[in-house]
Amino acid sequence: MIHEIARLTIDPTRAEAFEAAVGAARAHFEAAKGFVSFALERVLENPAHYRLVVGWESLEAHTVDFRSSEGFQAWRALAGPFFVAPPEVEHVTRVL
Amino acid sequence: MIHEIARLTIDPTRAEAFEAAVGAARAHFEAAKGFVSFALERVLENPAHYRLVVGWESLEAHTVDFRSSEGFQAWRALAGPFFVAPPEVEHVTRVL
Repeated sequence: MIHEIARLTIDPTRAEAFEAAVGAARAHFEAAKGFVSFALERVLENPAHYRLVVGWESLEAHTVDFRSSEGFQAWRALAGPFFVAPPEVEHVTRVL
Repeated sequence: MIHEIARLTIDPTRAEAFEAAVGAARAHFEAAKGFVSFALERVLENPAHYRLVVGWESLEAHTVDFRSSEGFQAWRALAGPFFVAPPEVEHVTRVL
């Protein structure tokens, strides 16, 4: 299992609507093949920065299966309009 | 509750020794006032990058209490020699 971590940057004056959009998009992740867990975190030091943290059974479940799915298109349609910078995505595996 | 997220950069040829040092330091976090959880994650896209993710009861439990404690000194003594860049630390709160 791995975690996708996407750093998302928005206009912080639109935070409430952004969080509602991510909440609406959550079901598209939960319905995806290989989905494990979902969280949205906000950075205390910078209210324009959020982190989407999604657990997947494998790297490919995110980078191949989900990104080629209608669920990904739906996620981007909901949340994408809020982004003021390209999302920065990386993947991590827990070692301790 | 909040999470401290520290991006740590090391020489990846020393990964095994670094992970052992973090494992040895774990008890110093677990003994700290306000400690909640501990994880070390490795970034798949760049083996020089790790993320230390520590849950704390409050921001101050990390930034005030822990950073002024002997446990923090012990952590830095164990892991600091592996750092090849200053740690980049931020704090997040879960919103979804």
